[in-house]
Amino acid sequence: MARPQTVAIIGLGLMGGSLAAAVRRKIPKVRVLGISRNRAALRDALRKGWVHEAARTLEAGIPRADFVVLCTPVDTLRASLAKIDRWAKKGTVVTDVGSVKGDVLRWTPKTGFRNIRFIGAHPMAGSHARGFGAAQERLYEGAQTFVIRSEAQSPAAYRKVCSFWQSLGTRVIGVTAREHDRIVAEISHLPHAMAACLVLSAAPKSLLRAASGFKDTTRIAMGHPDVWLPIFQSNRHEILRALKIFEGRIRAFKTALALGKQGVLARLLGGAARKRSQISF
Amino acid sequence: MARPQTVAIIGLGLMGGSLAAAVRRKIPKVRVLGISRNRAALRDALRKGWVHEAARTLEAGIPRADFVVLCTPVDTLRASLAKIDRWAKKGTVVTDVGSVKGDVLRWTPKTGFRNIRFIGAHPMAGSHARGFGAAQERLYEGAQTFVIRSEAQSPAAYRKVCSFWQSLGTRVIGVTAREHDRIVAEISHLPHAMAACLVLSAAPKSLLRAASGFKDTTRIAMGHPDVWLPIFQSNRHEILRALKIFEGRIRAFKTALALGKQGVLARLLGGAARKRSQISF
Repeated sequence: MARPQTVAIIGLGLMGGSLAAAVRRKIPKVRVLGISRNRAALRDALRKGWVHEAARTLEAGIPRADFVVLCTPVDTLRASLAKIDRWAKKGTVVTDVGSVKGDVLRWTPKTGFRNIRFIGAHPMAGSHARGFGAAQERLYEGAQTFVIRSEAQSPAAYRKVCSFWQSLGTRVIGVTAREHDRIVAEISHLPHAMAACLVLSAAPKSLLRAASGFKDTTRIAMGHPDVWLPIFQSNRHEILRALKIFEGRIRAFKTALALGKQGVLARLLGGAARKRSQISF
Repeated sequence: MARPQTVAIIGLGLMGGSLAAAVRRKIPKVRVLGISRNRAALRDALRKGWVHEAARTLEAGIPRADFVVLCTPVDTLRASLAKIDRWAKKGTVVTDVGSVKGDVLRWTPKTGFRNIRFIGAHPMAGSHARGFGAAQERLYEGAQTFVIRSEAQSPAAYRKVCSFWQSLGTRVIGVTAREHDRIVAEISHLPHAMAACLVLSAAPKSLLRAASGFKDTTRIAMGHPDVWLPIFQSNRHEILRALKIFEGRIRAFKTALALGKQGVLARLLGGAARKRSQISF
């Protein structure tokens, strides 16, 4: 990328902490500025050498940044962008790692930023764990990153954001906000909800006998509600749409099982096995 | 265990192949006899030293065995047991690794074995992969093994089977066939079906973007239908029961999401996260 001198990372949890480490490893010439209200995370990030400098408020940090990455929960995005716009240098490019995109774009054009150019992004990397303690240098490596395209946006800023995510070793996928939200509803948000429902359905006595199959299937249900509740709320339209399709599959499965329709059951299980085998392990 | 001189393992797929290797490692004094129609698997098992001797039919192998473990798909169990009973030495103890138990017990007492004493077992270990090529020496290590208790069975045979599974480094859990089938419906069969439905629900375009969350959640859907179809059929009563409970959870989730009931959604997600965190990673 055309190198910004200072990349500010707002929020030093799992995503922000890992991002700071990745920027240090992959774009060593860039200065990393960590912005967080969490003193312990700032201290640890400085000690690990994952950030060069630290700030506890947007007001203190943002004026020093040439490029900003927001790594806070999705429900804080709107308010944060407004504040960043207030303190940023003219032309500062801002991206993020949020899991839902449509919501942001619904109000972004109306707000009309004064100083910043915002291009949403969503690297498909993560963990059920959270906080700076769970951050890993290689969390983003090999991930796919959605970068959101819209007609209103600056092409130069879009290229800059794509270039940033590519520099970190991720593969950029350009999509509209609507495409994004539909895709993640199917491959992330609905699976999360179903994993949670599976856990809630199992009797405590049964849960004690769980082996690798159940553990893998339900791992993501350990994700913290503080992270996931805002995601579910802001993408509920697409999640409900994906759920409707899923319920149709359950009905087909249930009917086949109840009526002993072996052929239908074989097609469902075989179709799923083949389709799942098309993506890597 | 009171050591049998020869343990016959019928079926050298993932489960049987791994079992042969485990017996060799953990009970080295015992001779392992592999019985399989699959010539390649027998040859490979001999070459790896996982079996001492090989037989291609029950007729050829069973008379030589002191202890038998059936590792073939659940729908072959009934016919196999009848044949084993025909060729076995008087008093031969037989166990298995099948995923469903109620079905077997429904006809076992009626059949009334002449020579064998059958005690069903189900080690909770496995993989979505199948066949001898997927077998691993340590597949069973640290697993929990259900051993089925019933009033009709011989206490000595039950102890022998428990001792066998303990010798392999698994933890034995004594349950009735009914308890077993209910537990595995909740922690294995229903999750498998839901993983398959999730895969079938995702648009192919979305599937290409899947990351670790989706991959883990749906890994088991890669299981081969030849293995899983008989499991679903023979445990359908308990699976339908578990599915009903699951559907109740989905309805609660859907209503909370559609109506924006944040408190309910937070309780569902938070409850699942806490419950899932109680079992190991």
